[in-house]
Amino acid sequence: MPRYKLTIEYYGTPFHGWQRQEDFLSVQQVLEEAISEFTRHPVTVFAAGRTDTGVHGLGQIVHLDLERQWAPEKVSEAANGVLKYHGHPVAVLDCEQVADDFDARFSAKRRHYRYRILNRWANLTVELGRAWHVKKPLDVAAMDSAAKVLIGHHDFTTFRAMNCQAKSPMRTLDTLDVRHVCDLTGGGQEIEITTSSRAFLHNQVRSMAGSLKLVGEGKWTADDLAAALAAKDRKACGPVAPACGLYFVRVDY
Amino acid sequence: MPRYKLTIEYYGTPFHGWQRQEDFLSVQQVLEEAISEFTRHPVTVFAAGRTDTGVHGLGQIVHLDLERQWAPEKVSEAANGVLKYHGHPVAVLDCEQVADDFDARFSAKRRHYRYRILNRWANLTVELGRAWHVKKPLDVAAMDSAAKVLIGHHDFTTFRAMNCQAKSPMRTLDTLDVRHVCDLTGGGQEIEITTSSRAFLHNQVRSMAGSLKLVGEGKWTADDLAAALAAKDRKACGPVAPACGLYFVRVDY
Repeated sequence: MPRYKLTIEYYGTPFHGWQRQEDFLSVQQVLEEAISEFTRHPVTVFAAGRTDTGVHGLGQIVHLDLERQWAPEKVSEAANGVLKYHGHPVAVLDCEQVADDFDARFSAKRRHYRYRILNRWANLTVELGRAWHVKKPLDVAAMDSAAKVLIGHHDFTTFRAMNCQAKSPMRTLDTLDVRHVCDLTGGGQEIEITTSSRAFLHNQVRSMAGSLKLVGEGKWTADDLAAALAAKDRKACGPVAPACGLYFVRVDY
Repeated sequence: MPRYKLTIEYYGTPFHGWQRQEDFLSVQQVLEEAISEFTRHPVTVFAAGRTDTGVHGLGQIVHLDLERQWAPEKVSEAANGVLKYHGHPVAVLDCEQVADDFDARFSAKRRHYRYRILNRWANLTVELGRAWHVKKPLDVAAMDSAAKVLIGHHDFTTFRAMNCQAKSPMRTLDTLDVRHVCDLTGGGQEIEITTSSRAFLHNQVRSMAGSLKLVGEGKWTADDLAAALAAKDRKACGPVAPACGLYFVRVDY
């Protein structure tokens, strides 16, 4: 059976996360149904990373096997047609046929996430659901500097969800950068946290973002962040940042 | 009565435009109701520019008179509190007290608009309702070059709505630029049209954007655009671009 690699974009707000569930609509479900609607056989997609409810995908990668040969552009065109018809904010950005041993999850060499913060006192309007609204002014330089204590090979128990399924809490964080994107009309700023790693633990990026916010507010120092990491204790983590600011950006293979 | 100048941001999709109407919800109505909820008297706001259904505001300016003195930051805080409580995607970004002769509409020296195009074949997801989705690849350089024929003092009859209320179709277009913002994952590009003028006619920006899209597709040359302008005939205009791509960005006084 020919195998395909698809690049998927989605707006996470209306979905109960990536993974298919009994009672709630997931991105996986609408994507699988869209593809099986024209292939006329059940399809299972395997994703590079599961995202939680409300998290957005800009370059999620999935692989799937089809029962017969399809031109890759036919797969994406047909899937997008069905997705658009049903009004689902999910799109296939790219499709290519790949070798049988390609696995969206296990072949991944590096995953890239972005976390957006709109740091201003006024409510969000156009960006509602697309960024974390933080009112208190944040010190971006302090956040970026403190972030560096998390780089490298560590036990990230502090920064993973209690229900994280990974066997080991050890991960190697390659990059974690915080930057000022732009000033905002009427005051305030847009801030972007970008991070990459071969693999992340469940809620790791949002846990790191929530703790970095405490640094930005001046409630934590870089030493406090280092101590939280060293504690290897979920209770040492700052409040987890909301899902709406998180974007799954890209996967390297 | 003290006069205030407010900078307003809004997501236009759920509203039937800026202007208050009998049967439909407008940005003006929710803003006036939010302010009168804490001032305890009816309030009328006067805007720099009315926007159509689905058009977004990033820096709309209004003025209003209150019956007694309020600290400007109290006005914006209280208004935002009410707007957020009611779940309206409208925010007051800034508030200042101004002289009695300040008029948001008539004191304006220049208005700035932005028009966003996502130029790719795949459906929109995260940016749905926030940009015009154009599938056919557009030639940005050709669009930018052709745009220059509209700069200056002209009769813009071709580029205004049939029901435009302005007495004269003469306007002076100061800038009209088309630029490539960034490449998109999976192919395609984001394009931004920016324009400024002391005043615009009804539907002028969307009419110009729609005609520039024809240039980008290669269906029109710069000469065709010049001929459309010279025709002074609404029927010579290209299809009007949809409201969702348009942002009212800023007003200079």
